[in-house]
Amino acid sequence: MEVQASMRIPLERSGSVPLYAQIGSFLRAAIISGKLPVQTRMPSARRLAGDLGISRMTVEAAYAGLEAEGLVRREMGSGTFVMALAPSPTRSSAEVPESWPQWQQDLIASCASWHDLPVLDVSSVVGEGVIPFESGTGDTRRFPLADFRSIMRSVLQREGKEALDYGETRGYAPLRRTISEILSLHGLQAGADDVLITSGSQQGLALVAQLLLRPGDSVVVERPTYAAALALFRAMGVRIVDVPVDRDGMRVDLLETALQRYHPRLIYTIPNFQNPTGACMSTGRRRSMVALAERYDVAILEDDFVGDLRYEGRAQPPLKALDRTGGVIYVSTFSKMLMPGVRVGFVHADGPVLKLLAGLKRLTDLATSSAFQRTLHRYVSIGRYEAHLRRSRRVYATRRDSMARALERYFPSGSEFDLPCGGLFIWVRLPPRYAAPELLSRAQKAGVGFASGEEFFVERSSGDRFLRLNFAAVTPEEIERGIRSLGKVIAESN
Amino acid sequence: MEVQASMRIPLERSGSVPLYAQIGSFLRAAIISGKLPVQTRMPSARRLAGDLGISRMTVEAAYAGLEAEGLVRREMGSGTFVMALAPSPTRSSAEVPESWPQWQQDLIASCASWHDLPVLDVSSVVGEGVIPFESGTGDTRRFPLADFRSIMRSVLQREGKEALDYGETRGYAPLRRTISEILSLHGLQAGADDVLITSGSQQGLALVAQLLLRPGDSVVVERPTYAAALALFRAMGVRIVDVPVDRDGMRVDLLETALQRYHPRLIYTIPNFQNPTGACMSTGRRRSMVALAERYDVAILEDDFVGDLRYEGRAQPPLKALDRTGGVIYVSTFSKMLMPGVRVGFVHADGPVLKLLAGLKRLTDLATSSAFQRTLHRYVSIGRYEAHLRRSRRVYATRRDSMARALERYFPSGSEFDLPCGGLFIWVRLPPRYAAPELLSRAQKAGVGFASGEEFFVERSSGDRFLRLNFAAVTPEEIERGIRSLGKVIAESN
Repeated sequence: MEVQASMRIPLERSGSVPLYAQIGSFLRAAIISGKLPVQTRMPSARRLAGDLGISRMTVEAAYAGLEAEGLVRREMGSGTFVMALAPSPTRSSAEVPESWPQWQQDLIASCASWHDLPVLDVSSVVGEGVIPFESGTGDTRRFPLADFRSIMRSVLQREGKEALDYGETRGYAPLRRTISEILSLHGLQAGADDVLITSGSQQGLALVAQLLLRPGDSVVVERPTYAAALALFRAMGVRIVDVPVDRDGMRVDLLETALQRYHPRLIYTIPNFQNPTGACMSTGRRRSMVALAERYDVAILEDDFVGDLRYEGRAQPPLKALDRTGGVIYVSTFSKMLMPGVRVGFVHADGPVLKLLAGLKRLTDLATSSAFQRTLHRYVSIGRYEAHLRRSRRVYATRRDSMARALERYFPSGSEFDLPCGGLFIWVRLPPRYAAPELLSRAQKAGVGFASGEEFFVERSSGDRFLRLNFAAVTPEEIERGIRSLGKVIAESN
Repeated sequence: MEVQASMRIPLERSGSVPLYAQIGSFLRAAIISGKLPVQTRMPSARRLAGDLGISRMTVEAAYAGLEAEGLVRREMGSGTFVMALAPSPTRSSAEVPESWPQWQQDLIASCASWHDLPVLDVSSVVGEGVIPFESGTGDTRRFPLADFRSIMRSVLQREGKEALDYGETRGYAPLRRTISEILSLHGLQAGADDVLITSGSQQGLALVAQLLLRPGDSVVVERPTYAAALALFRAMGVRIVDVPVDRDGMRVDLLETALQRYHPRLIYTIPNFQNPTGACMSTGRRRSMVALAERYDVAILEDDFVGDLRYEGRAQPPLKALDRTGGVIYVSTFSKMLMPGVRVGFVHADGPVLKLLAGLKRLTDLATSSAFQRTLHRYVSIGRYEAHLRRSRRVYATRRDSMARALERYFPSGSEFDLPCGGLFIWVRLPPRYAAPELLSRAQKAGVGFASGEEFFVERSSGDRFLRLNFAAVTPEEIERGIRSLGKVIAESN
């Protein structure tokens, strides 16, 4: 279907709402209400601009916004098409009577692209007895709770007043110093003042996105990539340009074209044991990415969420260590290796951007809990963290191998995966006749969870045949039992 | 000075950056670099649009963005003028060499309006011995630390694993239930599922702003208002429309004109013991505001940061209690009354917006620390919080009266203030010949802090003669000594 007649969009030219936003609202409502059905080809920007007597770029800006919200898809050379709306339990339920204010109803439409991604339910209430292959963290059962608890008790006892007052926005200075020492082990020359403590690395990502991006901007991500980063970018109304990942990380040879074409403001990358693929970016590509970003004046956001968890091979330098101009913002966390509820992550950057990120943090939550920072600082500085890491590496490497063997044994022939050199995940591609999303509810009934591949793609259907399996959060016995059950569910689905 | 020649702005019409954003970047750089000096009258939108061959609304959108950043000021009927840049230590210091990437240098310019507001330094490191009249919280020295600590210890002991795991994004359910009971005492019919726990009320404000506002949108605030809310709105690039406050709160009689003229997306109000003025909005105005917001389809963000701290008179209903359509979002906190480092605030709203706020919270920091929520829940439910509140009210009322007496005695004649019925602050206006900002460093040298009025105004110079003085965080002895010193500093400044 194609829009033939010239489109009448009422524009208030003397109001304070920019024209592109007025056009965006009108078309959004038309798509949501079904007046513009799925697959409708929208008028070209040139034509709509002519009809409305406005500039073509204004229409382009409106279309870019709708694309970022997942309402239309632009295909080079063939046009702009209305997309199927993601099924949204919120929108169809009785909770949304006609009587909510219009501004609330508009919100539902404008948030359709991100607000109900299943992976983001971080509730710890997993189904009773379900083997958590879908987990995004290490094994919290192995966390030395007693140690941490007794340190925290002594922090509350000795420093209670300070620990329960507002801390410094940048973070507890001794912990920042400790983090700068950890960073130096990775080849990063950071002082305590070059570090900002955040409430988990998720806050680091959110602050960078909020500081650097505005609706209509473009951001480059890996294909596939971390689902909550995708949702974050969608929520900000930016255009997401995805560049494929292979065994050696992002295909940096394809990056330059994207930079030239989309003038992105940010490149988001997970170079070590990538989420979800487990790929580790080669040193050559790391150098090329840093050089390209410098040449095209684009910021790099380096997410090193499990860089410490290498099981074999030589460590690659962080992108930040190759950056000599202040072009890379490095984000990491303790949440994946310790109790996730500790919620302490950090950002390392050079130049004015770090101070601005701290300023934005003040505006978003003032400061991160000082009590946890003080406890973590003591825990790390008496060597407990390093010892915990060493033990975890040994245990997780064994679990990775158990999972690989179980997959060979129980998954249908034609399933493919690479053995990751570190991290938490094995990324499995099923043979063509299978579809992961359809397996999920059956797997859960059989007592097994997994992260369905579509969560990690801009174009969700590209992930149909993929499963992300966490081998670190589960015991070898659970791996054997869980992969066997999963293999059975897959075989029966055919 | 006026721009006479037609302005040449290079526009890339085939790129992905909207035209209004390109124009904004170009003019921003020209203003920051001084190529367009202070007081320059910019070309009218009509003329610039003609010069560039684009629509007038595109230029208006660019100007609105520059205005929101504090770079230009639009005066109805007379034009758009370049404003003086706020002095920015970051920009002038040696920390910003020419060699930072261009994107970092651009950031400094685009964040100039908000990034170094002094009030937002929440560091607990106050100068040794300085009397903290500038404080934004209750008296943390009166907090029953021992009680809280022993409850927290027992939470870690009995529920350590759950307390240190990711909690539910919406917040610990028993605490949400407890909060809904507290809300019912204020006439709010909220269930546990109508509450979202946040990391302090600052996060509640930030989430609402991020969900509802886009650059170029307008927001209505009170004049004066909470400095960190102003900074938050500035950081988002929205236009801030301020409506004056008198003894009975926001001048709601002036609100309708603003709604008609600016079509704002949000009204931000602090109806109880307003920050900084201490004013309490009359019930009549509360009803009118809710009715107007409904008629004009604008969301209300009600910030009830110290509603519990009433010293006399009858409680007024929260705006949320007068709202029957889901138009009001209610935000509050425990941080002002307990240890600020506890960082637990909450949002109550009806309709889809609450679920969307929870979704956005997941993307910004996943969840608030479960350990603190569990501790707070037990502390509140065994009646300790209510007892602490009762004691605090009694103590703070006495301190308010002490401060009023001290002001009468030590401040220059012609100083004006109203006695607030609750809250934390007295808002003093000095006689015409004094200027508060110039007093600040001398007062600090004399061992006294205060919050300078200009922080609370969109147009900073409007606050020149005002001081915000916290009477709750200081003892009667400190009040007597501090106000005497301050009076002396003021007298000597003349």
